[in-house]
Amino acid sequence: MHHVGQADLAAAVSNAGGLGIITALSQGTPKGLAAEITRARRLTDRPFGVNLTFLPTLGAPDYPGFVQAIIAGGVRIVETAGRNPAAHMPALLAAGVKVIHKCTSIRHAKKAQDIGCVAVSMDGFECAGHPGEDDVPNFILLPLAARALRVPFVASGGMADGRSLVAALALGAEGISMGTRFLMTQQSPAHANVKAAILAASERDTALIMRPLRNTERVLKNASVARILETEQRLGAALGFDDIAAEVAGVYPRVMIEGDMTAGAWSCGMVAGLIDDVPDCATLINQIMADAEAIITKRLAQIVAPQ
Amino acid sequence: MHHVGQADLAAAVSNAGGLGIITALSQGTPKGLAAEITRARRLTDRPFGVNLTFLPTLGAPDYPGFVQAIIAGGVRIVETAGRNPAAHMPALLAAGVKVIHKCTSIRHAKKAQDIGCVAVSMDGFECAGHPGEDDVPNFILLPLAARALRVPFVASGGMADGRSLVAALALGAEGISMGTRFLMTQQSPAHANVKAAILAASERDTALIMRPLRNTERVLKNASVARILETEQRLGAALGFDDIAAEVAGVYPRVMIEGDMTAGAWSCGMVAGLIDDVPDCATLINQIMADAEAIITKRLAQIVAPQ
Repeated sequence: MHHVGQADLAAAVSNAGGLGIITALSQGTPKGLAAEITRARRLTDRPFGVNLTFLPTLGAPDYPGFVQAIIAGGVRIVETAGRNPAAHMPALLAAGVKVIHKCTSIRHAKKAQDIGCVAVSMDGFECAGHPGEDDVPNFILLPLAARALRVPFVASGGMADGRSLVAALALGAEGISMGTRFLMTQQSPAHANVKAAILAASERDTALIMRPLRNTERVLKNASVARILETEQRLGAALGFDDIAAEVAGVYPRVMIEGDMTAGAWSCGMVAGLIDDVPDCATLINQIMADAEAIITKRLAQIVAPQ
Repeated sequence: MHHVGQADLAAAVSNAGGLGIITALSQGTPKGLAAEITRARRLTDRPFGVNLTFLPTLGAPDYPGFVQAIIAGGVRIVETAGRNPAAHMPALLAAGVKVIHKCTSIRHAKKAQDIGCVAVSMDGFECAGHPGEDDVPNFILLPLAARALRVPFVASGGMADGRSLVAALALGAEGISMGTRFLMTQQSPAHANVKAAILAASERDTALIMRPLRNTERVLKNASVARILETEQRLGAALGFDDIAAEVAGVYPRVMIEGDMTAGAWSCGMVAGLIDDVPDCATLINQIMADAEAIITKRLAQIVAPQ
């Protein structure tokens, strides 16, 4: 949700009864994050959270600064993702911030539980962005989490509608986390070109790139992704990040904000195949809740006790 | 379920309230299938079905003979899989046999619907054996099927327990189809070595082979599979089926029946990670139904109407 998780979308989600999330790194600096938190406060009086993604890069962002902006801004819930958040847990826990770590495997979820996360977000193979290297979809990952964890978890990856919500709850999750689905709303700042591309995409229109680098990312297929896959195939084990960096690096502002669809690869979930509209956030959440309630109280109840 | 879908297992499943399935090709010849159908009739008075898998091979089995054995044996339900069953639909439909085709994509499911199948079995990326080339897991595939199809469908791939059943029902399926889970029962003829290997396997212990041949198969990782993957990597686009045939061809009797675990690659679903026991079929089905009912009437009902 890089460059999409802004205050407007986060506040709209929170106002509709969800937990909106501001993406810290999209704000550039801790000062920028502090300003976005202030802006969100003006747009909603409901709780919202901040996502803090730990990248596998050498020139790291100012993570301690972002953590301080979160604490100073009175944010009570942080979603961490990417690398192990352990180094920042003491500061967050001391400030009473609840940390939900996003994980693509059971072993990482157990680790997150052990370092003090109050919950985890289990992210299946279906997801946009980085699914890890195990390729375990939510039908397997969620019931494994239900058996293995003592902390609650939400389900990420492939979540689109009332059906997804009830299925995730049935598999043991306490809720769902939606990325691509919220990107496809009226309040999302993603460019109209991006929204049009996802509306047109089917479940077969994503690809996994950077697998040989063990930094796999699920992206929407386009000409640039075709070139990346060809390069990966051609170089085999000799592939280095430099060979594809020009296609994948730093394209998010150009794509998401400027709508430059000739720019390189960008994350998109398989759930694109289930997305046919660009609703208001409140309309979307209300529809999901109504559909989920109908599935539980009508469809499933009827199967258990016919007539 | 090659060499596992025998009368004993099929009858045990049907006696426990499921729809047991005899695998036609495991019987060798139409005469063998006729004998196995007769044997199943002695073991159960409940309905059971026959699976007929259309292989992508030149030297095809005697499919018309198998179809006649099914019809003459009074079997009312056939699960077809693999290639398009269209050539055999007239004979099956004329005999009043209901055909459920197993599909890994929405376009194939629509085709099956169009040629007269009364239902389809949607087989997600999680599945044992051939998941197709689209890699769409059930969290995406099932709600897409619910939107796209007018015939009912069951969910295959990744199905293990009461959680799976309720999730599949929530996503629009009318039931679930289980392979690996029934292989891991007391009545399954799979060798104890195979059952021990699946008990020991985690969700990370399967691999996809034959992808470069567009005949992808999900198999349990072993030394032979490691050799196949190395060969695929090394030969790249030059890979031919001959390069790996010795590892994959004809190993099922040696593995499944004789328990020769040095033999080549054999199908196994990711659901292996969710399987920790080898129960009686009736115990398994009763537990799944009880768990599903509790999830619907307690967990989900409580979420909709707390207290």
